[in-house]
Amino acid sequence: MQMYDRVKDVLKQMLLGQAARVGAELSYSGIPRDYALEILVSAVSSIIWLWIRRGCKEAPEQICAIIEKNKTTAPVDIIR
Amino acid sequence: MQMYDRVKDVLKQMLLGQAARVGAELSYSGIPRDYALEILVSAVSSIIWLWIRRGCKEAPEQICAIIEKNKTTAPVDIIR
Repeated sequence: MQMYDRVKDVLKQMLLGQAARVGAELSYSGIPRDYALEILVSAVSSIIWLWIRRGCKEAPEQICAIIEKNKTTAPVDIIR
Repeated sequence: MQMYDRVKDVLKQMLLGQAARVGAELSYSGIPRDYALEILVSAVSSIIWLWIRRGCKEAPEQICAIIEKNKTTAPVDIIR
């Protein structure tokens, strides 16, 4: 769990750093801040984690495409 | 990690069982099936996991509300 949590922490710092750099105002659509950050990084880290666990079968570009697609898709719209 | 993965597996089974029960056609918006399921359950399990780790300070109803809100919100819309 340590490595997984470390990946999530790094992703959180990157997210907050990038938001600060572009001056993005952070509001979390009614979701408390800590939970919002947790949701945001858990999807990305779980995608990367699944990829690694299965032996990196897909090309890195395909994993990037999945992460990009996920960014703009609400969970309810993933399955339909 | 074992308990965390077990929670995710149970959530996956519930999700697929419920979809089958209501006859939902499963397509995954261009995201491969395994990754789609991983994304769907990782958000829910990370919310519950963060809640437990911090000593269940929030009311269960508040955690449910966060999960519900997350279902219909794309990651890009969580922070804005």
